[in-house]
Amino acid sequence: MSRLQNSARTEGASPRALNFGAGPAALPRAALERAKEELLDFESSGMSVMEHSHRGKPYEKVHYEALALVAKHLGLSAEWDVLFLQGGASMVFATLPMNLLERGKVADYVVHGTWGEKAVTEARAATSLGAGDVHLAASTVAQGGSYARVAREDELTLTPGAAYLHCTSNETIHGIQYGLEASTPFPRSRAKGVPLVVDMSSDILGRTVDVSEFDVLYAGAQKNIGPSGVTIMAIRKELTARGRSDLPAIFQYRTHAEHHSLFNTPPTFGIYLVRNVLQWLEAEGGVSVIEVRNRKKARLIYAQIDESGGFYVSPVEKPSRSVMNVVWRLPTPELETRFVAQAAAEGMVGLNGHRVVGGIRASLYNAVELEWVEALASFMGEFARRCG
Amino acid sequence: MSRLQNSARTEGASPRALNFGAGPAALPRAALERAKEELLDFESSGMSVMEHSHRGKPYEKVHYEALALVAKHLGLSAEWDVLFLQGGASMVFATLPMNLLERGKVADYVVHGTWGEKAVTEARAATSLGAGDVHLAASTVAQGGSYARVAREDELTLTPGAAYLHCTSNETIHGIQYGLEASTPFPRSRAKGVPLVVDMSSDILGRTVDVSEFDVLYAGAQKNIGPSGVTIMAIRKELTARGRSDLPAIFQYRTHAEHHSLFNTPPTFGIYLVRNVLQWLEAEGGVSVIEVRNRKKARLIYAQIDESGGFYVSPVEKPSRSVMNVVWRLPTPELETRFVAQAAAEGMVGLNGHRVVGGIRASLYNAVELEWVEALASFMGEFARRCG
Repeated sequence: MSRLQNSARTEGASPRALNFGAGPAALPRAALERAKEELLDFESSGMSVMEHSHRGKPYEKVHYEALALVAKHLGLSAEWDVLFLQGGASMVFATLPMNLLERGKVADYVVHGTWGEKAVTEARAATSLGAGDVHLAASTVAQGGSYARVAREDELTLTPGAAYLHCTSNETIHGIQYGLEASTPFPRSRAKGVPLVVDMSSDILGRTVDVSEFDVLYAGAQKNIGPSGVTIMAIRKELTARGRSDLPAIFQYRTHAEHHSLFNTPPTFGIYLVRNVLQWLEAEGGVSVIEVRNRKKARLIYAQIDESGGFYVSPVEKPSRSVMNVVWRLPTPELETRFVAQAAAEGMVGLNGHRVVGGIRASLYNAVELEWVEALASFMGEFARRCG
Repeated sequence: MSRLQNSARTEGASPRALNFGAGPAALPRAALERAKEELLDFESSGMSVMEHSHRGKPYEKVHYEALALVAKHLGLSAEWDVLFLQGGASMVFATLPMNLLERGKVADYVVHGTWGEKAVTEARAATSLGAGDVHLAASTVAQGGSYARVAREDELTLTPGAAYLHCTSNETIHGIQYGLEASTPFPRSRAKGVPLVVDMSSDILGRTVDVSEFDVLYAGAQKNIGPSGVTIMAIRKELTARGRSDLPAIFQYRTHAEHHSLFNTPPTFGIYLVRNVLQWLEAEGGVSVIEVRNRKKARLIYAQIDESGGFYVSPVEKPSRSVMNVVWRLPTPELETRFVAQAAAEGMVGLNGHRVVGGIRASLYNAVELEWVEALASFMGEFARRCG
């Protein structure tokens, strides 16, 4: 297991897995070690942080630190609210139209993968809750339901005066990412007066974005930011204020903004871990430094694919290839199974493609170490020589 | 700090706090120590349990264990679904009428404290989402907004054919609990064909209940069951099936039942801790054993109140006095402040009453050790002698 020697080992513990899972995913070791060290005794209180009241000073300090770190690393001005919600992006799919899509209005959705499809489906169902209508502004779906790229600007049929335009920054399942190149810009709806809402679940803080083009962004934490059970939302205050006010309080974004995400008991331990992860991010040099590393990681894998003489095949068009989730196929399902099994034997786990699409997927989130990716790239080369 | 000697100490760590907080609250030490030990290496996988995919076998095993333990310790038959949800009881306040209160129908609510009030408020707001109407079947609110007891059976004005009747098993803030004595039975609506829905957030698995009288029960985990961020619901399958089906999938209880609470990414680490806590509960002998201990703990504190010659005053009528949250007043707010401060100096924390009602509150959840309560009772006696 020579590839594991780069991972520090704890006495008696298993070697650290090289975890390429799509989420819940690898977390920075430093964030976990800190959690472990103080699990039963947070800041000499004789209690776990998860045993502290969410109304007490020790937890509140963590909470506000985490909110501030999200704002800082996303580059948000005072015009934005940062919210910690529950229910994952899947819950936002429903609460977004409830809050921001008045009856009589239309929201535009751009779809280039499964998560975009799900967002549309839930938004359409929200019409039963008084939300307006949903318009598919673009879909890059191909025959058989597959996706190979983001939508081009000239493909978007935008609704003038739409309540918002929704898109998915990174399609975790299909390995397709928006806005990485000049030819794949995020929809420029904001310039046309239509708020841009971006699901960033699988690339938030994994790359720099120009939030001046965005109005809402949200993400389940369980890729780049923390454990599952925490949802991060950043929303311009003017939109928070404009949201529907006849909903139960728990659904209104304004409720959580006004209460600094302490309206009801938040997932305190999850938010504490988010704080730990973002402090690690800060110590690493922030998003711009991480982004360089992430692009390097992705290049290592895409190079193996492109230089394999067709043994490995990427289904994604180059300008849309995700830096976070690299997907590829082998000549046969049998070889894919063997690839995953042999990689696992060398400590590399989580490489199965999503059950919807099959194949192989390597998720290269912030906490996935460069050395792990080098080990995977090396394994890919060896496997191709052996089996190609 | 002699009162702390009964708590085992870890080298270099602070003594374990005697945590009487109302929630998030004390968790069993064994559950936390296990989490600490395997935080970076779950079952020799070289990963934290929170880094595992929710679709992988290692986490799935934990998930189904936790579901089964909830069912077992609540005494549920195969007629029930057990769900892990997100958003706390506050989210259920809204999703309950969305699922089960059709337009044109009425739901009855019994209120004997702040949480019942909140449930009513959110249910009323859910009419904007297509839910039917809310009827206050009883409220024991007194002048000034205070509460001193549960509703008597003869006070309930039940709606024939109501969609359900909702009540709060234990009012955490006011220290009022239903169904502890023959004179304070849970509303017998089920016998009249009206499903009984019970918010058990602060006494679930802290005492035995006859679930044959219930149709739905739910609870945020952060009192007796685990950390915040996990909501437990038990619902009869016939109700799950009857629920409204035009809602976004994420809101439908049937979605979570059909997917065994794996429709979207659940709060995996929280559910893992729930599993640990319920295994501890099992090792302790189960709910019936815990209940005996909990009643003993409560008696110790109520005895101090009742034998203090009026220095400590309970605002709650005796048959409604909660076993989980004991609230009381001292002669002046200044004495209350001193009481809390001096108790804290002896390692007893979380004794402030809720900001809505003031005074003192000792929460005596399952993980609060008998020795801690003996220490508190002893302190109460000394304090009364010193300051009374």
